[in-house]
Amino acid sequence: MTDSIAATINTRANVYFDGKCVSHGITLADGTKKSVGVILPATLTFNTGAPEVMETVAGSCSIKLAGSDSWQSYGPGERFDVPGQSSFEIKVEGEPYHYICHFG
Amino acid sequence: MTDSIAATINTRANVYFDGKCVSHGITLADGTKKSVGVILPATLTFNTGAPEVMETVAGSCSIKLAGSDSWQSYGPGERFDVPGQSSFEIKVEGEPYHYICHFG
Repeated sequence: MTDSIAATINTRANVYFDGKCVSHGITLADGTKKSVGVILPATLTFNTGAPEVMETVAGSCSIKLAGSDSWQSYGPGERFDVPGQSSFEIKVEGEPYHYICHFG
Repeated sequence: MTDSIAATINTRANVYFDGKCVSHGITLADGTKKSVGVILPATLTFNTGAPEVMETVAGSCSIKLAGSDSWQSYGPGERFDVPGQSSFEIKVEGEPYHYICHFG
C-alpha cells in the first residue's frame, strides 16, 4: 500500500458527483500524472478516457466493469484495472474509499 | 494564488463532516506540513490546534472567528488567519471552496 507519494499536487480539487468523489491531481518528477482521491458511500458510474489502475489505500469497494455482470470487491493494497474509453460502476458502503488512480 | 505545490502527499484523505470537507496532508521538502482541501456548500465549525493561515485557491467563503460577530468574505488568492486553540465558522455557498491550509 502506498502511504505517500512525492509529487507536485494541484491545489484545486476535482469534485465529481456533488462531492461524492473528490480527488487532487498530482504529477511525479518524471512527468507521470496520477490522482489521489476519496469516494464517499455511494454507487457511481465513472467513464474512463485513458486506461486506469485504481489502487486501494483504505476502505473497500465493489466494482462492475462495463459489459460484466459480476461485482468484484477490493480492499486496502488491492488494485483493479479499468480499460480506456470504457466505464465502471463503483459501490462504496460504510466508510470512505481512499484510492490512488494511476493512468495509462 | 498557488496552483501547485511540490511535496510528499499523504494518499489517505482527511474526511470531515461526512465529506463536506476533504483534505490531503502534504509535507514540503523542508518538513513544513500543510493541507490542500475542498469544502462543499455548507456552514461548518472548525476547531484549531496550531494557528492556521487559510489560502483560497478557488471559490469563496465567509468566515466568522470565535468571539467575533461579523462575517468576512474571501475569494481566490485571499488569505485569512485563524488563531490556535480557537474555532471558526465557515460558510460556503454555491460552488466548492478550494483551499491550502498553512499551519503555524
